[in-house]
Parts: sequence; C-alpha cells; structure tokens
Amino acid sequence: MIKVGIIGSTGYAGGELVRILTGHKDAEIVWYGSRSYIDQKYADVYRNMFQIVDAACMDDNMEALAAQADVIFTATPQGLCASLVNENILSQVKIIDLSADFRIKDVKTYEKWYGIEHKSPEFISEAVYGLCEINRNDVKKARLIANPGCYTTCSILTAYPLAKEGLIDMDTLIIDAKSGTSGAGRGAKLPNLFCEVNENIKAYGVATHRHTPEIEEQLGYASGREVVLNFTPHLVPMNRGILATEYAKLTKDVTYEEVKAVYDKYYKDAKFIRVLDKGVFPETKWVEGSNYTDINFQIDPRTGRIIMMGAIDNLVKGAAGQAVQNMNLAFGLPEDEGLNLVPMFP
Amino acid sequence: MIKVGIIGSTGYAGGELVRILTGHKDAEIVWYGSRSYIDQKYADVYRNMFQIVDAACMDDNMEALAAQADVIFTATPQGLCASLVNENILSQVKIIDLSADFRIKDVKTYEKWYGIEHKSPEFISEAVYGLCEINRNDVKKARLIANPGCYTTCSILTAYPLAKEGLIDMDTLIIDAKSGTSGAGRGAKLPNLFCEVNENIKAYGVATHRHTPEIEEQLGYASGREVVLNFTPHLVPMNRGILATEYAKLTKDVTYEEVKAVYDKYYKDAKFIRVLDKGVFPETKWVEGSNYTDINFQIDPRTGRIIMMGAIDNLVKGAAGQAVQNMNLAFGLPEDEGLNLVPMFP
Amino acid sequence: MIKVGIIGSTGYAGGELVRILTGHKDAEIVWYGSRSYIDQKYADVYRNMFQIVDAACMDDNMEALAAQADVIFTATPQGLCASLVNENILSQVKIIDLSADFRIKDVKTYEKWYGIEHKSPEFISEAVYGLCEINRNDVKKARLIANPGCYTTCSILTAYPLAKEGLIDMDTLIIDAKSGTSGAGRGAKLPNLFCEVNENIKAYGVATHRHTPEIEEQLGYASGREVVLNFTPHLVPMNRGILATEYAKLTKDVTYEEVKAVYDKYYKDAKFIRVLDKGVFPETKWVEGSNYTDINFQIDPRTGRIIMMGAIDNLVKGAAGQAVQNMNLAFGLPEDEGLNLVPMFP
Amino acid sequence: MIKVGIIGSTGYAGGELVRILTGHKDAEIVWYGSRSYIDQKYADVYRNMFQIVDAACMDDNMEALAAQADVIFTATPQGLCASLVNENILSQVKIIDLSADFRIKDVKTYEKWYGIEHKSPEFISEAVYGLCEINRNDVKKARLIANPGCYTTCSILTAYPLAKEGLIDMDTLIIDAKSGTSGAGRGAKLPNLFCEVNENIKAYGVATHRHTPEIEEQLGYASGREVVLNFTPHLVPMNRGILATEYAKLTKDVTYEEVKAVYDKYYKDAKFIRVLDKGVFPETKWVEGSNYTDINFQIDPRTGRIIMMGAIDNLVKGAAGQAVQNMNLAFGLPEDEGLNLVPMFP
Repeated sequence: MIKVGIIGSTGYAGGELVRILTGHKDAEIVWYGSRSYIDQKYADVYRNMFQIVDAACMDDNMEALAAQADVIFTATPQGLCASLVNENILSQVKIIDLSADFRIKDVKTYEKWYGIEHKSPEFISEAVYGLCEINRNDVKKARLIANPGCYTTCSILTAYPLAKEGLIDMDTLIIDAKSGTSGAGRGAKLPNLFCEVNENIKAYGVATHRHTPEIEEQLGYASGREVVLNFTPHLVPMNRGILATEYAKLTKDVTYEEVKAVYDKYYKDAKFIRVLDKGVFPETKWVEGSNYTDINFQIDPRTGRIIMMGAIDNLVKGAAGQAVQNMNLAFGLPEDEGLNLVPMFP
Repeated sequence: MIKVGIIGSTGYAGGELVRILTGHKDAEIVWYGSRSYIDQKYADVYRNMFQIVDAACMDDNMEALAAQADVIFTATPQGLCASLVNENILSQVKIIDLSADFRIKDVKTYEKWYGIEHKSPEFISEAVYGLCEINRNDVKKARLIANPGCYTTCSILTAYPLAKEGLIDMDTLIIDAKSGTSGAGRGAKLPNLFCEVNENIKAYGVATHRHTPEIEEQLGYASGREVVLNFTPHLVPMNRGILATEYAKLTKDVTYEEVKAVYDKYYKDAKFIRVLDKGVFPETKWVEGSNYTDINFQIDPRTGRIIMMGAIDNLVKGAAGQAVQNMNLAFGLPEDEGLNLVPMFP
Repeated sequence: MIKVGIIGSTGYAGGELVRILTGHKDAEIVWYGSRSYIDQKYADVYRNMFQIVDAACMDDNMEALAAQADVIFTATPQGLCASLVNENILSQVKIIDLSADFRIKDVKTYEKWYGIEHKSPEFISEAVYGLCEINRNDVKKARLIANPGCYTTCSILTAYPLAKEGLIDMDTLIIDAKSGTSGAGRGAKLPNLFCEVNENIKAYGVATHRHTPEIEEQLGYASGREVVLNFTPHLVPMNRGILATEYAKLTKDVTYEEVKAVYDKYYKDAKFIRVLDKGVFPETKWVEGSNYTDINFQIDPRTGRIIMMGAIDNLVKGAAGQAVQNMNLAFGLPEDEGLNLVPMFP
Repeated sequence: MIKVGIIGSTGYAGGELVRILTGHKDAEIVWYGSRSYIDQKYADVYRNMFQIVDAACMDDNMEALAAQADVIFTATPQGLCASLVNENILSQVKIIDLSADFRIKDVKTYEKWYGIEHKSPEFISEAVYGLCEINRNDVKKARLIANPGCYTTCSILTAYPLAKEGLIDMDTLIIDAKSGTSGAGRGAKLPNLFCEVNENIKAYGVATHRHTPEIEEQLGYASGREVVLNFTPHLVPMNRGILATEYAKLTKDVTYEEVKAVYDKYYKDAKFIRVLDKGVFPETKWVEGSNYTDINFQIDPRTGRIIMMGAIDNLVKGAAGQAVQNMNLAFGLPEDEGLNLVPMFP
C-alpha cells in the first residue's frame, strides 16, 4: 500500500486527487494538507466526501510528511514546492508536483513568465516532465515529477505526433484553447463568481499566459527545433473540460489516412488517448470525469492547414488523474490502476 | 458473472446503467437494446463509451434476451415492460423494470394517472417495489422488481422514518421537488432545448404529476393510513440532481436530537443514505454521480412544522444506481458492489 | 428632469438601476455612489456601460448628495440607510431604500431577524412600503419609500388577492421559493463561485430567512390577522429570476373561474402583473429583464389546496425596476415610464 | 409609421425582431409569419410577449404581405427568400433577408457551400450586403438587403480596418469563433438538448462552415485581393453571444497606438462599435441584449502576430438588431432608432 501525502488537498485539483485515490486499491492517503483549513474535517470542506473521508486537514509540513509517506503530491500555487523540496526529502519520498515549479528546464524562462525567483533550481534538471504518454520510461525512475499543466497536457498531446514527424510547420502553429472554470481554482475572486462567468465567454492572458513556454519547450523537443507560438486561453461557462483547437500549415500533401497513421504510431498503445473516428470531433463532455484525451483532426485543402482538436477533463488528465498515472508508473503499478473512470454523461 | 440485458440502453437512464455496469466486476452486459439505434455501434450513440463498449445496439426482443441473460433491465417508457413480460420470461430471468409499470399495486390508479391500459396486471402483486433501504428482504427473493421513480425515491426516503414513526401529520405533507433536465429524457423536444431550459426555472405537472400516487402509496404503507399529498416538480437548469423539500406539521413537540435518532434508527446501516450534520442542508452537487441520498431536516418552532430535505442524483440513486443495487440484492452480491462511486465535485 | 443619486451603484441591484435609468427619459443620474470603487470610472466596474456612462464612482456622502439630487436610491446592505437618513435630508430629497431598513414596522422584529440595532427608528412609521400594486396611493405622497425585497415582492403579489379575500387558510400557507444567483450579490464569496453554484441546487436560510417577517407582515395586513408561515429559499444555477411556489388550503370550494376573478379584481389594471392563461405556469425566463410579475394557480381538489406560482426578475421587479416604479409614482410620472422593458428570450 | 412584415417570426431571430420592433417608435409589425404556428397566438409561442403582442401567426404569403407592408424581414432557412422574391414584390416593398440567399455574389460559391440551387440569381447583383458600418451608403438606397450572418458580422468587423489598411497578411488569417446555442435555432434536435450542450464545448463544421465564403468575400473586398482562410465555429453552453478570436501576421512593425488609430479611423463614428480600452478584452456578457460589437486586439512581438477579438450578441448585432439598423438606414431614420438597448448584466 503506497502511503500518499497531499499538500494542497482542498483546492479543486487536490479534491480531485482525493476523489481518485479513494478508489485506488494500492494507495492510501495519510495526510490531507491544507494551510487554510488546518484541523477542520476534510469532509466539511468537501461535503461530497462525507462518510467517505474521516480525516482532518493538516498543515503543510513537508518534513513530517516525508517521514510518513511514500509519495507527496503538491497541488499548490507555484513557488511552494520549490521552496520546500530538498535532498533530505527526496531521499525519503517521491514528489509529484502539480504546480509549474519543475516543468520548465530553463530557470530564466520560468522566472520571467512566473515573475518569481526559483528557490531550488538545483533540482530542475533532475525533475522529469510527467507527460506519461511521452516520457513513460523516465517517469518510472523519477524521484521528482513535474506534473504538466492542464492546457499544456491537452495542447501538447494533440499536436505531438505531427510535430515529432515534421508534418506541420511549427512557425505557423496557433493554439486556441477553451477551459471550464474549475481551472481558475477555488479562490473567492470576483471574476469567478457565478454571475460573472455564466452566459459569458472571454479570452484572457492573451499572448502572455504562463502555459505558453511549457508548450513551446515540449513541442520544441518533439520537433527538434525552437518553437514560438500563439496560445490563447478562453474561459467557458462550465465546470470542467478543456478543448484545444490547433492550427498549422502542413509541410507536405498528406491524406487523412497518412495523418491518422501518424497518430496511431504514437498513441496506439496509449490507453488514455482516444483518436476518434473520421469526422467525429472531440467534445469535453465525452471525457468528463475520466483520464482520457480525445483527439481528432481535419485537413483543409483550401488553406493547406490542418486543424487538430483535443479534449480533456482539466481536473483529471489535466491534473489529478495524470498525477496518479505518474504515481502508478513511478511505483511499478499498472498505468491505469485507479484510473478506469468511465466518462459521465450527461 | 451475471449476464445483463438492457432494453432501452440509449436513453439517459440506460446510458447510466452502461456506465455503472462497465465498472461492476460481477456483471457483464450481453445485450444493448435500443429500438432507435438497431445495428449502430453503442459508442456512436454515447461517444463517452468509445473504446470502452464495442457492441452494437439490438432490437427489443425480450424472448431472445431471456434465453441469454440472467437479468433484464427495462429502461423504457411506461407500458413497454408490461406488454413484454410473461411467465415464460420470468421463469428464465429476473426483470428489473425502471418504468412505472409495476410500481403501483392498484391497477386502476396506474391506469388513471398514466392514461394507458395495463397489459399484464397479473404480475403486479408479485412485483417487489425496489426501494432497497425499505424492502431489502423482499428484493432478495424477487423475480420482478419495480425500480422506483427518481422523484419518488428522493421524496419517500426523505420522509419515511418520520412517517413510519408517526412524527408527522400526513395530511399536511407537501413535497416541492426540483430536478435537473436529464430527468426529461433524451427525446428531441422543444421544451428541453438548451435555450429553453437554461436561465429558467418552472413548475410543471402541478397537482397532476404521475409520481404522486407512487409516493402516496409508499408513504401510506409507512404511516399505516391513506396518504393524499401535494407534490410539485420543477425543472432546474442543470443536468443531474433532484432536491426534495418537504413540509409537514409535527404531531408532537420533538427536539432535533429526537428526530435525528429516528433517522438513525432506520438509516444507520444504510450505506447509501447520509443523514448530514446538524445545520448542513443537502445540495445535489454533493451526490452527483453517486448512489447516495443526502438527507437533513430543520424544525421550525414558529410554525410547528418540520422541513425535510433530500438530494439524489436522479440517474443514479433515482434510476440506474438503484437498479444495480436491486440486482446486487437479488443475486446475493454485496449491496454496494459496483456502486462505490465517489461523488464528483465540482 | 429628476436628478437621481445612487448609493451603492456597483452592486448588482445598483447596476440594474443604472441600466434602467439610462433609458428613462425624465431621470438623470448625477451621483454614482460606490464606497468600493471611489474615483474609478463606473464603466470600468461594469463594462457593459462602456461609452454609455462616462462618470466616475463617488463616496457615500448623503449630505452632499441631498443637496444635488431629487431622489436618492440606497442599494446598500441593511443598516446603512438607517444610519444616514435624517430630517434634514428628507426635507430635501425623497429616499427610496432598497435595503430592509424601513420595510418592517416593528423595530424589534427587524432587530431580531437582522441582528443589528436600528439607527433611526423614528422614521419607520413614516416610511411607505413600496409595493406599488398594493400601496400605490401612499407611495405617491411618500418621502421615504421602503422598496420591498425580491423574494417578498414575488411571494406577496402571488398570494395577496386570495389572502385579502379570505380564500386561503393563512395558517397553512407555505412558500417554497427559488432564486437565481444575482440575489446573492457581487461579493467575492466562495459559495457564490461558478463551480459551487453551477450544476447544483440547495435550500438555505431554512426557517430563518430574513424575508420571512416581511412577507408575514404584509400578508397579515392583507388578511387582517397575524400570519406565521414557512418560507424556504433555494439557490438555482441561473443569473436572474425568482419563482415562488405557494401552497395553502382553500377556505371553501371554489372553481378556477372564481379564483381567476379574484386575481382579476386586484390586478386587472396592474400593468406589470400578468395573470397567465389557464394551465400556463410562470417561468422565470419569460419575465427576464422586465418589470413583470407572472402569476398563475392550480386548484387541487384531491387535497383541497391551491398551488399559486409567481415569477419575477429579481433585479427588476424584485429591486431596481420596482424602485423606479416607486420613483415614477412619487414624482407624478406615468407608472411605467422607463419600464417598458420587453422580456428577453432566450 | 413603417409597416413591417416578418416571415419566420417564431424562430429565435424572428422572436428577437419582434422584441426589438416592439420598442421601435416608427415601426409597427403587421404580419407575424410562421408556417409552423399558423393561427396560433404569437404570445402562445413566445410567452414573454404575453399581453404585449396580441396577434396570431400567419402563413408565409409574400404576395399578400407585400401589399400591406413597407418592409419584409425574412428570418427563414436559406432558399426560402430566394424562392419567393420577384420584381413585383420588390417594386412594392423593401426586403431585408436574414438568410444567406443574397449575401454571396458568386452564385456558384453559394450553391457549392449551401448545397442548393439558387432560385433567383437575377437579384444577387442588386442586393446590398447589409453590414451597416461598411456599406452604409448603399444600404440607404437598397430594395433588397442581405443581412449578414452572425459569425460573419463579428468576424468581419473585428478584422476589417486592418485588412483594409493592409496591416495584416491575409494568407495567415485564422478565425476561431465561439457561439451561444441560440445560433443553432429553435428546432427540436437532439444535439441542441440542454443535457447535450450544457457542460460541454465542441468545434463543428470544421473547415466546412457556410459562413466561411461570406467572410472571405467581404474581407477580400476590404483587402483588395482574394482571401482564403480558416474559420472554426464552436458551440458554447450559453444562450447568446459570439466571440471571435482572430490571428494574423502583421505586415510590418506597428505599435499599439498605430493599430488603435486604424480602428478609430474606421469606427470612431460607428455608434455600435466599441473599441475597448487597452488591455481590456471583449466578453460576450458585456454586449448581451444590445447591438454593440466590442473589439480589441493584442500585438504579440514574440510571434509577429496580432490577436484580434470581437464580441456581439448573435441575435442582435448578429441578426435582428442589424436588420433593424438596416431598416433604419433604408427608410431614412436615425441609424440607432429602437436600438439603444443597454446591455444587460448579469
């Protein structure tokens, strides 16, 4: 039984970790960290867990936690994990960080986009970028796993095979993404009030969103060259789900079947990636509550572009589900253990 | 392994049966019945099931199904199950009927409220009303189980202990219920269009809704007298969930603790009923996707009334989940097998 | 041209006052009060008003305002208006208070339900309860108008004619109300976040909601006796709208036509009350954005009860629209000036 | 008083025409055409209009209508207007067609994208494309006005000034648009059911949507060259609103101020276009219920692209509001008559 500690268990991603791990037969949560709700019963913060979780919330004491747990999930704002991690801790437990602290290899890029100083840059090179479908083997051996961002998971997986195979001109890649509101977190802020979000759609972080360099870095590795792209997130009046619509010029004439074969080459054995049937485009509702990434594409011969689309549940494949997938890999369990969550419809 | 056939597998309740049974380790679906989608792949009708269900839909042939299956779920409009069932079929399989056909013992009452002739009244007396928490022992032995309605499940469970103990004056009982839109089914009807339902709330079936006599009958058994009450359903702009707010005069002065003790007496061992902490009122979101019924109450000394509130997911405890709970009981499995669904939040 | 000052112009009710008054040909806003946004452009707080309102927000200085304005709307939390009003101010301007401060005649009742001390009880008896359809003549002469609450407006108007005519047993009256989320205000609080409200319905303030004594008082005047009732509000995942479903025993056998005649007697000339056709029940969407109250009823001969239903837009007839209607009456303008807002659908 | 006939008055765009014209002081609706609801009271189809509109629906008899009306709005599926119009009718009344029949000058393009034969190609050249802000002078003299599509209005207005001034490379233009569900019409179709749309976002018509050639044609006129672009619409779970996010390479180094000046050059006097303040991006909620188009842009020096964003209410500026704006121009009235609709928030 893997002993799990969660720092930041009362945010939406933390809550989803609890939901998923509750149904995981080889893991047990031993620490419900939450700076905001110390000593309060977890089920008073998330009443869906009434009579399911009996524990109270605890402080963010990583040293104490490291002594008790086999793995720590940090579902916290950027900066916190980097400020707490050290060699002593990493020698005792694996850390799966759901924040951005160890996702970006170039510390200057991190500090520029996030506007804070990185407190433990010495661990950046060791950290493994936990996009399981791409870095599966590295994840298995990792002590410190940087769990990818929600937008980035969806954006990268959707374009990865074509970037890797050189089928798309990376200079022309544009990602227009749409997210449900749980991505904005559980903080009590005016723009996230029901009446402000409902019956509304808007772009935000235009040309400045922090997930941009993360996407660029990973697609850079895939394509073997530096990538600079436009990424525009939008806020959609729904709780969960991310849809990424991606546009790029094809580098050569290809048929539907040829592109399909490329996706199959990379994802045929990826249990959580579903390349849909021809003409069926991803909808966030079809993956809700599950760890799936649904992907499809359309070639436009008029413009010479391909439009790629991907959909995930931002709290599952975009956060907690992928974190558990990483845990499974890192502890030698079946990759899908505890993750056979059937999407809920409607 | 229990072989399961579903007639009406492509309605919302049928789809939820498929979702739940997919995760049930002792059951296997052998027949995806759907008159509307014969020979089409089930996963083309519900794309959340892509790469999870590979089967195609089949006609509603109950004779053929009876030969293959151990249990048949009929998730169909009223009248269909009653027109198909016969002794030959019941001698081969158990039937769990999610329609209203066998819920009401008095065939005249059924025919009056539903406006159709009952085609097999000879089986009504045999049928067991499958409200597991109340009729557990009868369900275990049943061949034909009448799965309760969504509104009725929520309405009855919320008031049952107090009705049974004579704590409320049944002549004063009023049930004001609110439901998400999946309760209206997947038929393409104008009143169920997004733009008609969204940003709107309305009452419907005022003083005439068909779940009324079902509630009256069951609460009549509980209280040992004839019950006539007001039940008013409302349509709420959300996918899932039913909240029942129930009002009645108390028959004597009681304290919070005394009423709580009554609920505990009946529900302490009911795994799927959660009587909430004092002052915490049920919200449909806290049970979404799960088989729970959340219940609480408030005594109003000013008026001498008690306000009871109950919440369920209409597609789970209100339909498919309860049906599987009935199946578990009828086949001697643990009551919660396949039903340990953690509510999804947000 | 009536010079209007608004204290609390940046809450949702204040914003709606601005929207409505912008289209009112005999009124002009001279003061956009907002303690939270002093000196910020109003259109930066409500961007729908970009290029429509050019003014900046000002402090809540009622003395200064009284010198400039003909009428002051206070759309503020309870307690504020009572703490600012005095004879000097009332001798200069009319005040229409959208808070609860002057709605309840018995100061002890006010202080008990609101939990605060009333700072100017000497003006309570002078204040006119501004439910125009009922107190039209008093409103015309008033200096200080207590604008009714949102739930109360809907609840009272729905039952008023039957209470007045003695057709319903007031001891049996139960009001089950449902409101959109704008009623909770624009404060940044966790329970009002999109993800907490969306896909959810809950009761709140059960047996303790502050609108209860206001409804009881007014229906008490109507029925000529003390009224004690149950009022239960619910939060619905929509922006606007209140639906009240009201239950009471009829005091005698009456037909549909007789009850209809009673409603017509009181509301035939009420421009903003629409008693719907037989069998058509109110829906909040049909009044959205307008000053209408839609009302209908259903007699249930089985239980001897009548179910009355009313729907309003909580920000219009339930707040700003009614306040402007009061202003029109108090200044001798046509009652509907600026209020011929056609409901928006969908 | 302009006598107005509406063919197709019971669709969502038709309903919005009725809402707007009801408040227009120089227009009067004399014919509520609706093939589906002949002889039924209009207010029974749209109950928001109860006690506002007393008329019944009439058949689509354009000859009879032409004899009574000064202008006919056709808010009908494509093909209908083209099949009804003729010289005799046009000699009697002006026609403002909200369908696509006369928007595209090249009949072959129309027939290819819409898949139907054009029944009156002889009127295509005469028809004026009614995008008021661009073709104001032609509209004033027109007999036959092709009212632009909802997506196209938003897409074109957002990019027009930069296309006209050659500031963007038209070969790189990509339009990613998001629409509320009222754009799908009031037909009872499964994909438009509440439970299918709610909590969901999807792309549709990818690389094949019919508004594409219309946008290309108009931006082709603006830029003086043939334009071929990608346009991808998405369905958003909200009633109203379109947001267009548009990407293009800048043709030269420009500052924010220079681009702003270009927008101002074209739109400074356009009453219904609001170019927002720097850093404020359009949200559909801020224009809801109004005839505004809100526009802004962000230059991304990293990629050399500009991201332009525009928001409209699809039923107002995207349909009925623009149609009335066209009527005003064609009849010599002030362009904004009846259109000073303040956006409703929340």
